[in-house]
Amino acid sequence: MSYTAPLKDMLFVMNELAGLAQVNALPGCEDATPETVEAILEENAKFCGEVVAPLNHTADKEPSYWADGKVTTSKGFKEAFQQFGQAGWQGVQHPVEFGGQGLPKLVATPCIEMLNSANLSFALCPLLTDGTIEALMTAGSAEQQQTYLANFISGKWTGTMNLTEPQAGSDLALVRTRAQPQGDGTFKLFGTKIFITYGEHDMAENIVHLVLARTPDAPEGVKGISLFVVPKFLVNADGSLGERNDVHCVSIEHKLGIKASPTAVLQFGDHGGAIGTLVGEENRGLEYMFIMMNAARFAVGIQGLSVAERAYQQAAAYARDRVQSRDLAGSPGPVAIIHQPDVRRMLMSMRAQVEGARALAYVAAAASDAAHHHPDEATRKQNQAFYEYLVPVVKGWSTELSIDVTSTGVQVHGGMGFIEETGAAQYYRDARILTIYEGTTAIQANDLVGRKTARDGGAVARDIIAQVRKTAAELDASGDAKLEAIALRLNESAAALEEVVGFVVANIKSDIKAVFAGSVTYLKMAGLVLGGWQMARAAAIAAGKLKAGEGDTQFYSAKLATARFFADQILPQALAYRTAIVDGAESVMALSEDQF
Amino acid sequence: MSYTAPLKDMLFVMNELAGLAQVNALPGCEDATPETVEAILEENAKFCGEVVAPLNHTADKEPSYWADGKVTTSKGFKEAFQQFGQAGWQGVQHPVEFGGQGLPKLVATPCIEMLNSANLSFALCPLLTDGTIEALMTAGSAEQQQTYLANFISGKWTGTMNLTEPQAGSDLALVRTRAQPQGDGTFKLFGTKIFITYGEHDMAENIVHLVLARTPDAPEGVKGISLFVVPKFLVNADGSLGERNDVHCVSIEHKLGIKASPTAVLQFGDHGGAIGTLVGEENRGLEYMFIMMNAARFAVGIQGLSVAERAYQQAAAYARDRVQSRDLAGSPGPVAIIHQPDVRRMLMSMRAQVEGARALAYVAAAASDAAHHHPDEATRKQNQAFYEYLVPVVKGWSTELSIDVTSTGVQVHGGMGFIEETGAAQYYRDARILTIYEGTTAIQANDLVGRKTARDGGAVARDIIAQVRKTAAELDASGDAKLEAIALRLNESAAALEEVVGFVVANIKSDIKAVFAGSVTYLKMAGLVLGGWQMARAAAIAAGKLKAGEGDTQFYSAKLATARFFADQILPQALAYRTAIVDGAESVMALSEDQF
Repeated sequence: MSYTAPLKDMLFVMNELAGLAQVNALPGCEDATPETVEAILEENAKFCGEVVAPLNHTADKEPSYWADGKVTTSKGFKEAFQQFGQAGWQGVQHPVEFGGQGLPKLVATPCIEMLNSANLSFALCPLLTDGTIEALMTAGSAEQQQTYLANFISGKWTGTMNLTEPQAGSDLALVRTRAQPQGDGTFKLFGTKIFITYGEHDMAENIVHLVLARTPDAPEGVKGISLFVVPKFLVNADGSLGERNDVHCVSIEHKLGIKASPTAVLQFGDHGGAIGTLVGEENRGLEYMFIMMNAARFAVGIQGLSVAERAYQQAAAYARDRVQSRDLAGSPGPVAIIHQPDVRRMLMSMRAQVEGARALAYVAAAASDAAHHHPDEATRKQNQAFYEYLVPVVKGWSTELSIDVTSTGVQVHGGMGFIEETGAAQYYRDARILTIYEGTTAIQANDLVGRKTARDGGAVARDIIAQVRKTAAELDASGDAKLEAIALRLNESAAALEEVVGFVVANIKSDIKAVFAGSVTYLKMAGLVLGGWQMARAAAIAAGKLKAGEGDTQFYSAKLATARFFADQILPQALAYRTAIVDGAESVMALSEDQF
Repeated sequence: MSYTAPLKDMLFVMNELAGLAQVNALPGCEDATPETVEAILEENAKFCGEVVAPLNHTADKEPSYWADGKVTTSKGFKEAFQQFGQAGWQGVQHPVEFGGQGLPKLVATPCIEMLNSANLSFALCPLLTDGTIEALMTAGSAEQQQTYLANFISGKWTGTMNLTEPQAGSDLALVRTRAQPQGDGTFKLFGTKIFITYGEHDMAENIVHLVLARTPDAPEGVKGISLFVVPKFLVNADGSLGERNDVHCVSIEHKLGIKASPTAVLQFGDHGGAIGTLVGEENRGLEYMFIMMNAARFAVGIQGLSVAERAYQQAAAYARDRVQSRDLAGSPGPVAIIHQPDVRRMLMSMRAQVEGARALAYVAAAASDAAHHHPDEATRKQNQAFYEYLVPVVKGWSTELSIDVTSTGVQVHGGMGFIEETGAAQYYRDARILTIYEGTTAIQANDLVGRKTARDGGAVARDIIAQVRKTAAELDASGDAKLEAIALRLNESAAALEEVVGFVVANIKSDIKAVFAGSVTYLKMAGLVLGGWQMARAAAIAAGKLKAGEGDTQFYSAKLATARFFADQILPQALAYRTAIVDGAESVMALSEDQF
């Protein structure tokens, strides 16, 4: 159950598909030279593999626990988190002025992948802190930034996101937590928040909660929600810790997976009011939270990729190791099960999905960097639109496939996969939250359909599809039969996706239910086609390298075969999705409520 | 988390699709009149719903546990099992001469479905006992039958299947347990068996193990394996219990799911030898075990259906109950989430798969009855071939879909689905073993490809596909647009399946690895097409009833819409599978071992 970071594939994707050199050429990204990046990744891989990964299974067996309002995290977490902070890993993508390394998102992304592969439960704490940093960078006052950011980035303090309440899950309009102004610039908060990841723990000196709440005269619904920063310990003017604030963890959840990550129920204001300060302007809380959530959604997409990669590594190791049955050619004795075609099919399916998800996510990260740093405004805008289209796809598709990949990982192990000691089952349990938190797949799909596709009449979607077709045309004209085979599948699926985009745009006004009946299917289809696109690009590059006799032949031939597998075995599902979306809406809403 | 047996759908499938009247007309099946059957099902539904279902979640929280060689089962199991035995439920399909009810498999099948929906862990004990009864009925001596069968059927004793050893999982050729003849007709057994379901427990007076082992001069491999019956307590000549036999439970597994079902490691012969008697002839053990396994495989297919049904019921109830967000038409306030199109899509997808799996399984059960009881030999043979083709499909497809359906059930619950207290997560965990035990999906697929398709040159498969096409033609000629829409999808998928059968038959000799690279995909495809076929038949019947204004309009209109959903949203995957199998084999075996 060890974890070895797939550095070779990460660097290939960064260099060849996501364009690290172009990112490095952007103003403000000068430090991200290929040599520096490789050194950072190697160091991170070492830390994740040696310090964090060994805690994954042990922490699952002995999860974090609650007693008398305090949460004790799993053995080793506290020490590992201290090392994490001291080594500067929290600050990879954050501003130098607050102690970060100020590196591009493209460089932070593989680091996040590695940490999550090593230990999903552990990685959630930094993940939430990243979101908090992002929100305060965008909307926090200079004082708030001064008070909190350096402490987050050094790993001294951690951050949380407090959105959900018992009656307000996907629908934040229903938030009821109250914030009472005290006349001195502070507010007192009262309410209950649930599902708060690392809402209480013992890994840091202070825990800083970003909390959605309503001021007394706030309008109803989502337009009356403000964002507050509420630290567990109040912070004195000199930056030292003051009194204990009135926010208390009353319990943590008993969950299917990510058991070492404490999921808290937080009670605000039961003893007079939890003191907080407003972030940005009143009633704009949801807007700020969305900034934070977009970063967090992308990161959860990476979590899907991460746990899938870990499951793949363990399954491949087991398949090489486990001897059972002869091979089909009739070997003299039993052979390792990796010789069996169905085991191969399972491993290839895991591998192809992982590589496709990685390529798409890293390409999205590079677009985010260009959107922030490119000197040309039109290019910035174009990259921003591309990135925004991809965020729900990366979040939704990578997490949905992680359920499939981790389930296949269990299957490769046979009966041993069902025994908790083996470890494969943990990935299957852990992965199951990923399609739910930070917005369910349906919520991502609403975003993809509404804001990302219908709003501009499908313009961005069609631009992207045109790029897919361009790749397909290049492969088709390559004269290489293997690339032509991939081009065929890519073209078919791109055409199907184009049809679906047309369906969404044409029907969003006249038959909104029919469009949303296919929203998740559209999201999964977009993931397939765009993941398939990146695999096709990778195949073309690999074929070129092989032809030129350059580089690592084993790596490139594997890449080519994996891309071919993706094209033949995975991509054709896009056509079935097309039928489901375009022709299949009628039956979705056909039953009355009491017919269920 | 209550369970209400879907009696309406069960009776519809039995009467309209599986032909209960025809089964009732078979010699030996005269007792299975529609009235009797309905009464039995209602009584069973009551027992399962009231006695067994309430123990499902509590037992998951407090699983069976091992101490000092003894297993204490979860609270309430012992009493429920006594009631189960006393009410005669173990005997539904077993011979009247040993105290059973001698009813057809078609009648036993819904009873097995209900018990497993109520409590998968509990139901495993009777399921294994059924297999033991089947094996002794086929191959046991008169004395063995006399000693054991009535005690099994009354629920006084239970049975187990002992196949797996640490080095011998899917590959039984590697079995090492030894059986030493004692010269008095008995044998002493020595060895370790693992993964023995209900290998030790406190619910019955005696536990009777059927054990695969090798006699001293047995040939190597699968042709040297014999079957032995080894009771926990030896049985005296008068039928009373004698000495404790030398078979001991040294531990039980800590598992992902079905936690209340004790999975034992059994040690045979550590204190001088476990005394057993040979079943049937020496070296024919695997053959007998296959009889038992075929029954058990079909039953595990039912388990897939069962847990999927239970997950569906809970998800539908939650969706009706949970209020969150406005509806798309812009309701004044938030509505129950069942109004959201994506929740509908999820529920319909669960429902359609459950109904398809039920229909296919019950039709298979009826074929088994005809294969046993029909007076005409040719009809018996034809039904036997049909049933045998369906066994791996029912086992493999129903269990694979149960993972998807129970996962969707978690998703419908959102964040609450991830909390163990909700109960949805238990189905997701429990279901995960079903594609593994009693032969993994790959093992089922080997059977489907080898014995069931290639051996007769695809004759039986093509016969079945011809029946599918006949149904499609009927729907197509109905003049009913809804049925025509279903016919279109059914025809497409039947053509694809036919192509795949052709591919299997044409390549099995020349390119066996290419065929087996697609074996599981072929199995899933066969499930889809044949499940879709049954849903299409159901749709035609429902449309007829609606047209005639007969019966339950709500039920028939729901059936029609669900069949349409299956056709548009699920069946098109068959075309993607075709591509994967026929065009996609090349990449499956392309990597060398060290490229993984």
